[in-house]
Amino acid sequence: MQIAATPYIWPYDGAVDPAKTALMIIDMQTDFCGKGGYVERMGYDLSLTARAIQPIQRLLARIRDIEGFTVIHTREGHKPDLSDLPANKRWRSRQIGAEIGSEGPAGRILVRGERGWQIIDELAPAHGEYIIDKPGKGSFYATDLDLILKNKGITHLILTGITTDVCVHTTMREANDRGYECLILADCTGATDEANHLAALSMVQMQGGVFGSVSDSQAVLKALEQY
Amino acid sequence: MQIAATPYIWPYDGAVDPAKTALMIIDMQTDFCGKGGYVERMGYDLSLTARAIQPIQRLLARIRDIEGFTVIHTREGHKPDLSDLPANKRWRSRQIGAEIGSEGPAGRILVRGERGWQIIDELAPAHGEYIIDKPGKGSFYATDLDLILKNKGITHLILTGITTDVCVHTTMREANDRGYECLILADCTGATDEANHLAALSMVQMQGGVFGSVSDSQAVLKALEQY
Amino acid sequence: MQIAATPYIWPYDGAVDPAKTALMIIDMQTDFCGKGGYVERMGYDLSLTARAIQPIQRLLARIRDIEGFTVIHTREGHKPDLSDLPANKRWRSRQIGAEIGSEGPAGRILVRGERGWQIIDELAPAHGEYIIDKPGKGSFYATDLDLILKNKGITHLILTGITTDVCVHTTMREANDRGYECLILADCTGATDEANHLAALSMVQMQGGVFGSVSDSQAVLKALEQY
Amino acid sequence: MQIAATPYIWPYDGAVDPAKTALMIIDMQTDFCGKGGYVERMGYDLSLTARAIQPIQRLLARIRDIEGFTVIHTREGHKPDLSDLPANKRWRSRQIGAEIGSEGPAGRILVRGERGWQIIDELAPAHGEYIIDKPGKGSFYATDLDLILKNKGITHLILTGITTDVCVHTTMREANDRGYECLILADCTGATDEANHLAALSMVQMQGGVFGSVSDSQAVLKALEQY
Repeated sequence: MQIAATPYIWPYDGAVDPAKTALMIIDMQTDFCGKGGYVERMGYDLSLTARAIQPIQRLLARIRDIEGFTVIHTREGHKPDLSDLPANKRWRSRQIGAEIGSEGPAGRILVRGERGWQIIDELAPAHGEYIIDKPGKGSFYATDLDLILKNKGITHLILTGITTDVCVHTTMREANDRGYECLILADCTGATDEANHLAALSMVQMQGGVFGSVSDSQAVLKALEQY
Repeated sequence: MQIAATPYIWPYDGAVDPAKTALMIIDMQTDFCGKGGYVERMGYDLSLTARAIQPIQRLLARIRDIEGFTVIHTREGHKPDLSDLPANKRWRSRQIGAEIGSEGPAGRILVRGERGWQIIDELAPAHGEYIIDKPGKGSFYATDLDLILKNKGITHLILTGITTDVCVHTTMREANDRGYECLILADCTGATDEANHLAALSMVQMQGGVFGSVSDSQAVLKALEQY
Repeated sequence: MQIAATPYIWPYDGAVDPAKTALMIIDMQTDFCGKGGYVERMGYDLSLTARAIQPIQRLLARIRDIEGFTVIHTREGHKPDLSDLPANKRWRSRQIGAEIGSEGPAGRILVRGERGWQIIDELAPAHGEYIIDKPGKGSFYATDLDLILKNKGITHLILTGITTDVCVHTTMREANDRGYECLILADCTGATDEANHLAALSMVQMQGGVFGSVSDSQAVLKALEQY
Repeated sequence: MQIAATPYIWPYDGAVDPAKTALMIIDMQTDFCGKGGYVERMGYDLSLTARAIQPIQRLLARIRDIEGFTVIHTREGHKPDLSDLPANKRWRSRQIGAEIGSEGPAGRILVRGERGWQIIDELAPAHGEYIIDKPGKGSFYATDLDLILKNKGITHLILTGITTDVCVHTTMREANDRGYECLILADCTGATDEANHLAALSMVQMQGGVFGSVSDSQAVLKALEQY
């Protein structure tokens, strides 16, 4: 079974194979979609990123029922000593009033182990699911993600999470250059700006699907009915 | 001297230092902005990418006059045996009628050594400028770019070239995660879709400059007047 | 001040600069030099690796007194779910009677969080020192080490730890290819086989110092007297 | 069919599958085993590295007859502008009287395009074989090797070439950390020092085959008889 998607039915090479496919849930942390987190501190409308929660929840519940389907969560965050925080990233966050490493309502902003850095309860990782901690926007840089995917024989990625234009897109681009076949889900993603969310989805569709294909959770659920 | 830019005057850490800064000119190849190349074969309006040529030319002419300023050109392309071409990238190009590796008006599409793959005459690399050949959209993946930048002590990148939303943005994201301080120039870039070009520039400006800052060639030329 | 070393006084480019130099202490975990750990389970003579403990301790004590000197510890180990463990690495450890992930006297062998995986008490990381967790022999692959070194402006590495021929050497080779200037200390390293330890030190000295230079803790302490 | 090897019959996971296996021939360039090259300039005995030529030739001839077996050659070398040459690597080569980039009897030492940098005639790559150009000792760092292996579905590597303890071993270590299953051939490798050659082979055999297994060309030829 394949998934209805634009610009091409996904994946390009036949039926979805749960053994070779991972659902990636990117940065669904309080810092990016919860009260008192980084995104709220920067003054953005939380509903734009939080709206991805329910669609991911429904999709995740279904996928957890399928034998052999891999689920990978990612978390952006820095070590408490901030050794993995580039100076310009820190400076920028300070300019916008939400300095990484400083105390906020949800603990030290974007720091590992703090409350704001945790994955939200609604999407808490279950036993058997993987978590990738990353210092950057991309999930491949400075992490063991590529090794884990290779060990598991995973070649296809379904991308969800936030924000569409930053961490999800950077991960999708890294994955695509490495030959992974990617699908991004419109309703399971969100950005700090709606126009940027839509543009990020549009960019994927250029050049016959330059980074992969675009779909939504309904289409995935439909395709998974047979499993 | 710093460069007027949005959302912050660039770079964040003081005056532009030519010894630590590289002008990156991404994929200004016939395949992406010339007659008979890949982009034209896919049916896109060439003027959208070709419009970056003249602004880059003017900027490049000025930068070539500054002692110690590094210029790096990149070229997307695949080995003639296509061993570095992921199967899905090939499949997608075939669907859109411009199969990578097939014969086109400018030689084999996106293949190294072919006419379409060459950097256009207007921006031909000069002696002392570097060229990075890359199989993907990002300029860091599977290349020696990071090593060359480190060897030269380069920490700041001014990004130009095409297309804004694909290769320029992927490179900017990779660079930003690695701690490079990046500036993208609006008039020295272009995309196969104008809305995507504008959105790519907008995305950079979120979160206080999540990937760096945005400016144009006039602002850079003004800042470089003192050198 | 420079350090007496073979085949060249280290570093090649002038006095040791504590701000640009890191002491790396590789894999000084119970699994590699303690009772009930991985190396003992494989049947090797513990004294061959444990002998590095005291020399590192003395050097570390001195370096901790120098303002601005960076200390980086590494730990080889795998996630409890073994997702980052290649199948052949697991198979080999099983053949030799010490399967990674299985229960041993010091907990699950080479698994993060277990007792055997901990850094030994004698060399426990102090506040302000960094720890790199790695799934492989090299400290750069699938980790954030390169990012941290870049953020700190570190360009020179003094390598200690175990085992000389496996994790220390792999890390030294990765670092050297990336342009880091490396020094390995004979008395602060050790291998499961003494001849391999000596050969590993010999290999460094070929071709004018193909991976860097070789010294010992006494020479480093002497060079650091001035600080 | 498997290959007799130490410490385990190779590969660990069943019969050799030509579709998943690559023969890697590392740095069989004039600079490392020919008259007037880098190794001779440094004063080493050429016969120690050149002795690998004939065994590789015989093995290569046989493997070229097997449908679907991949052959990958590598070349160490630097761009003519030396931008990819770390400063310490250059300094060391100068100390030993064979400065990389300087004129030697076989052209500029270790520079791409020069005579000394070419693969020797006896092992000249044939049509359909791949060539990886690398600036370092490892074949994975700053190259597209991992991408090519992934594209081809190659998971097993048979390593030959020179020098055993430097470029072959560094490549084997990088490959092993990435999960590739490796075999190194004693008679198809060689080092600038015989003791280091033997020690490099010994190191592989520790810990149940810490980097893979060790064999020779006769054992491989025997195992390939059935194809």
